[in-house]
Amino acid sequence: MHALILGAAGMIGRRLTDALAQSGSLGGQALDALTLVDVVTPAVPDALAGRVTAQAADLSGTGAAETAIAGRPDVIFHLAAVVSGEAEADFEKGYRINLDSTRLLFEAIRQAHLAEGYRPRVVFTSSLAVFGAPLPPVIGDDMILTPASSYGTQKAMGELLLSDYTRRGFLDGIGLRLPTICVRPGKPNKAASGFFSGIIREPLAGQEAVLPVPDTVRHWFASPRAATDFLVHAAGIDLAPLGQRRNLTMPGVSATVAEEIEALRRVAGERAVALIRREPDPAILRIIETWPEAFATERALGLGFRADPSFDAIVALHIAETGAGPA
Amino acid sequence: MHALILGAAGMIGRRLTDALAQSGSLGGQALDALTLVDVVTPAVPDALAGRVTAQAADLSGTGAAETAIAGRPDVIFHLAAVVSGEAEADFEKGYRINLDSTRLLFEAIRQAHLAEGYRPRVVFTSSLAVFGAPLPPVIGDDMILTPASSYGTQKAMGELLLSDYTRRGFLDGIGLRLPTICVRPGKPNKAASGFFSGIIREPLAGQEAVLPVPDTVRHWFASPRAATDFLVHAAGIDLAPLGQRRNLTMPGVSATVAEEIEALRRVAGERAVALIRREPDPAILRIIETWPEAFATERALGLGFRADPSFDAIVALHIAETGAGPA
Ligand SMILES: NC(=O)c1ccc[n+]([C@@H]2O[C@H](COP(=O)([O-])OP(=O)(O)OC[C@H]3O[C@@H](n4cnc5c(N)ncnc54)[C@H](O)[C@@H]3O)[C@@H](O)[C@H]2O)c1
Ligand SMILES: NC(=O)c1ccc[n+]([C@@H]2O[C@H](COP(=O)([O-])OP(=O)(O)OC[C@H]3O[C@@H](n4cnc5c(N)ncnc54)[C@H](O)[C@@H]3O)[C@@H](O)[C@H]2O)c1
Repeated sequence: MHALILGAAGMIGRRLTDALAQSGSLGGQALDALTLVDVVTPAVPDALAGRVTAQAADLSGTGAAETAIAGRPDVIFHLAAVVSGEAEADFEKGYRINLDSTRLLFEAIRQAHLAEGYRPRVVFTSSLAVFGAPLPPVIGDDMILTPASSYGTQKAMGELLLSDYTRRGFLDGIGLRLPTICVRPGKPNKAASGFFSGIIREPLAGQEAVLPVPDTVRHWFASPRAATDFLVHAAGIDLAPLGQRRNLTMPGVSATVAEEIEALRRVAGERAVALIRREPDPAILRIIETWPEAFATERALGLGFRADPSFDAIVALHIAETGAGPA
Repeated sequence: MHALILGAAGMIGRRLTDALAQSGSLGGQALDALTLVDVVTPAVPDALAGRVTAQAADLSGTGAAETAIAGRPDVIFHLAAVVSGEAEADFEKGYRINLDSTRLLFEAIRQAHLAEGYRPRVVFTSSLAVFGAPLPPVIGDDMILTPASSYGTQKAMGELLLSDYTRRGFLDGIGLRLPTICVRPGKPNKAASGFFSGIIREPLAGQEAVLPVPDTVRHWFASPRAATDFLVHAAGIDLAPLGQRRNLTMPGVSATVAEEIEALRRVAGERAVALIRREPDPAILRIIETWPEAFATERALGLGFRADPSFDAIVALHIAETGAGPA
């Protein structure tokens, strides 16, 4: 079994690399080879040394996709993307990296299919950003995609390409709309969604966190571990039950900011909660209000994808993984 | 008022050209200039001679979109496309013409927007082919797009681009998912949908028509006149009520094959109906079964788009326009 991770140096790519290195297998088969590609040179995990190739490449460049798949990997995880804020700030870059790189990848696979019958499993990471207001309180699997950002538009177009290339037999694709990752490790960032993680991560580290929206705001979350598990699961399962609809919203935990704070209080007490400073930001609220709140993800559940059990479990996982936590 | 029709030599493009020539106005303003572009040189209507420029151009070629919009038309009708069968038979051509030409057009407009603040109304023709089985009997405005053809995929991607370019302020777009046009004028063709028109058109002309599916098959129709009216209406209305959702399924007439035949019988009698020869074709049935049957088109109705009143009216219109009909 040969796996390829595109965007391997990113937050999820690094975790997926580590998960594969630890298990040494994928889809019930031994992992003989792992290729890691990112515009930033990906780190090679010790456990797989000798079986890993790491490439630094811009996947929007000519020939980069061909080089990346030259070893004909059985499974391709396509995680490479620029995130929402960057795709909105730089229109051309967003389309070049999020749309054109995806199409170049699928085209490289199609050419190899036509030449040699190559037909890899492709796991594509889409996003909740494909959904835009007005939205029902609980979004079903048949909801129209009406993205309210260029990033969401590019992900929705990637989903359509994935379906069509799969239908035509060029590849065997599955697209996963990942919930918002929480608790996102690392430093606070400028993403509009940053506070969802910040109000847990910062207080647990004894630092102040700013909360720019009311406690009633509700959203859809998965831990970094759950997201990694989704990708690994998607690589190994039989996709025939999906028919031609190859894109799925992933199960998640629906929680309000108030419920997040209660989970923090249960683990870390009043002192941690007191580090959350309410500083309403109408600009952030206007963005967040257009986001989905909760989903009914029957198709993904039917295929065996499983959400974190609760927001408390998401917080506990963060503490276990980072060593952060109540003094 | 300057209008541009891309795909002006096509079935709908020619009718739209004639409609504009006849009314001499668009959106309540006098039509000072009309530019017609198609890969086949479009015919210039007498009524507008002197105000019309006709160009033969392949819109997937470098610079073609820039040339087409050089006169900075106020309204652009984007009808140029290769149809379903061709896009399925020639994968690369379908993507090049249906997707790349659309993106090249929008990019040319965006560059003119950045340079001079240009921001035309763009009317894009999408299709029911954006919907694919399994589908509910009546499809609402919030139904997910899951195309079962490359043509449908390309139209769905065009819709997403139209929305994003509109949201960013580069153009003022509206996408119309046209019902299947019936009675389509002209000769019988090989399209899977051809019989829907054929079983009316051929018997009215005293010729035999083949019916490859059962009488119970139901589908969604608009006359060529209704389709032209949708385009003209879309060019002139205020789109603010649409918010960010700029793509609409057009109202139509939902009719079964049996209802089509009854309409034919009422107008042209038993002798015409007897010209329909039942010759079941499982391959055609398999395609048709994945197609939508009926829609609830509240958003389009709310904006003033109106369907043909009945299937009888569709037949009557065909007779009035072509002179075909009962002896
Ligand atoms: N984190 C989330 O909450 C979330 C939610 C939904 C979807 N996703 C999607 O999951 C995927 C991974 O997310 P992440 O949080 O790890 O993001 P990330 O930004 O940490 O990782 C993305 C990686 O892609 C790489 N990349 C960007 N442009 C590239 C190019 N041209 N060529 C090669 N590599 C390039 C970046 O260097 C980065 O390492 C992305 O596709 C993202 O859109 C993430
Ligand atoms: N007729 C229907 O039932 C129906 C239904 C839904 C949507 N539509 C859409 O409506 C539009 C018009 O449909 P129609 O029935 O008139 O189709 P048509 O095939 O008669 O017309 C399309 C025109 O586009 C032109 N064209 C193709 N490639 C071109 C290129 N590269 N550069 C320039 N011109 C090019 C063709 O020469 C043709 O004249 C199309 O976009 C079609 O997909 C039609």
